[in-house]
Amino acid sequence: MRARVFVTLKPSVFDPQGTTVAEALHTLGYATVTDVRQGKYFELEIDARTPEEARRVAAEAADKLLANPVIESYRIEIDAGAGAAASAGVAR
Amino acid sequence: MRARVFVTLKPSVFDPQGTTVAEALHTLGYATVTDVRQGKYFELEIDARTPEEARRVAAEAADKLLANPVIESYRIEIDAGAGAAASAGVAR
Repeated sequence: MRARVFVTLKPSVFDPQGTTVAEALHTLGYATVTDVRQGKYFELEIDARTPEEARRVAAEAADKLLANPVIESYRIEIDAGAGAAASAGVAR
Repeated sequence: MRARVFVTLKPSVFDPQGTTVAEALHTLGYATVTDVRQGKYFELEIDARTPEEARRVAAEAADKLLANPVIESYRIEIDAGAGAAASAGVAR
């Protein structure tokens, strides 16, 4: 089962990387892009029987390793295999 | 309008960062996590009137700046505001 974990800086935290990307896009002529936030993206292949179990493992992994809870928040989506995208989103 | 761009290494490209995360998870006791791929995640706030226009701008930004098309592929989702998640996925 595949879990997707999106880690982004909390809205109150300054994101210099995103700001740099936004400025580069403006330089390239994309003035309609008003804001960019950059984050990390993880695809975890988890050997779990249920989406709930996969979500639990992914949430623990995010808490302990993938995200820094002080400045980052994360969101998890579970892709229950074979096209059936049982998206079980969790934001924290 | 918000565009989400996910950039990942192509499946044929070795992902040492993901491998390291997988090994760290095994060390922490999560043996059920069989594989990890790490990528980048961008949230672009785009001043566009239609989801199609936002998607076009996001795809050009990904082609020119956010992804390296030689080793990376990307996927775009458009979040057409106010909860109405008109997910218009494009994979390349």
